Amino acid sequence: MMSPENRLDQQLSMLMELDQLKSVLRRTRVKSANGREENSAEHSWHVATMALLIQEHANSEVDIATVLKMLLLHDIVEIDAGDTFVYDTVASQQQQQNELQAADRLFGLLPKDQSQTLRAVWDEFEAAETENAKFAKALDRFIPMLLNYHNNGQSWVEHGVKRSQVIAINGRIEQGSKTLWNKALQMINEAVQNGWLKDD
Amino acid sequence: MMSPENRLDQQLSMLMELDQLKSVLRRTRVKSANGREENSAEHSWHVATMALLIQEHANSEVDIATVLKMLLLHDIVEIDAGDTFVYDTVASQQQQQNELQAADRLFGLLPKDQSQTLRAVWDEFEAAETENAKFAKALDRFIPMLLNYHNNGQSWVEHGVKRSQVIAINGRIEQGSKTLWNKALQMINEAVQNGWLKDD
Repeated sequence: MMSPENRLDQQLSMLMELDQLKSVLRRTRVKSANGREENSAEHSWHVATMALLIQEHANSEVDIATVLKMLLLHDIVEIDAGDTFVYDTVASQQQQQNELQAADRLFGLLPKDQSQTLRAVWDEFEAAETENAKFAKALDRFIPMLLNYHNNGQSWVEHGVKRSQVIAINGRIEQGSKTLWNKALQMINEAVQNGWLKDD
Repeated sequence: MMSPENRLDQQLSMLMELDQLKSVLRRTRVKSANGREENSAEHSWHVATMALLIQEHANSEVDIATVLKMLLLHDIVEIDAGDTFVYDTVASQQQQQNELQAADRLFGLLPKDQSQTLRAVWDEFEAAETENAKFAKALDRFIPMLLNYHNNGQSWVEHGVKRSQVIAINGRIEQGSKTLWNKALQMINEAVQNGWLKDD
């Protein structure tokens, strides 16, 4: 049995390892910060806070503690694997193996019992089968759309994204929250009308 | 009664308002990002994740959902009030009134029932009287010390901070976690030995 002090030392080492998530840049830009690229740590805060704000719109009742844990942990694998643009489907497939290796390494830094418990939370999010995971995934898909929409479609325009791609990639929002998906469809239609998304 | 769609619109407006927390800079620097200043959004993610990792070291059993909510929301008032350096005690006193006004404005953006519920979480954190709040406050005090320690005492050195100040400001960590405070004392002693903190 490890002492509490030794467990704490391992946990604090993990915490410093996680500091690196603040350096992983995404394709989305921060509206308030002169349009600099968003990093995955601040994204994780934003999407977890979103869960607090819109929990009532989940299709089924969710356990907020589990949803928050998922959203705080969901991107830590990007420390090793980097962020992949969601509309780059080839890269996204290769990404999966890299992320699994990253999860093995990162959760492996923790005391074994805790490593298993928190890895199970990450696996549940990735599998997207439980109500908690479907809701958490829906938010993770929606929030970059919301930022894009408020940045005049910035990353859609930069990467020439089409309406059909946005529908295909984000349609799973409906499985977590029908109300949120209706809002997304409304935003997509406006984005096409404004020329931010290519109609096809 | 507002419709779910109208409530969602209000909640998403709040979420975009909160985007501004990504632009509030702190005195602490990010170890992994060439020492740039940390912003309050990524700090909030880091400290909430810390709660997940070290929950077992709380003096009393805590409700993790409440602790996570507190840590996700605790700094949003800085959008209006800015961040105050914790060792600047004059500014910290003036800051309190600014933060209360900011809380009125920001939580006021939400539907009324939700505004009250989430404001109560923020108030509970600020009051630091419940076990959940004491633990959350302890983490919020500890994590900048941990970053400083791993950055060769950077913000202590830059601002000429003394050992007695660090003890006075951070002593309340003990109320949330004795194990964490013992670790803090060990780090403070090393920091003095290394010349990162002035001995007095």
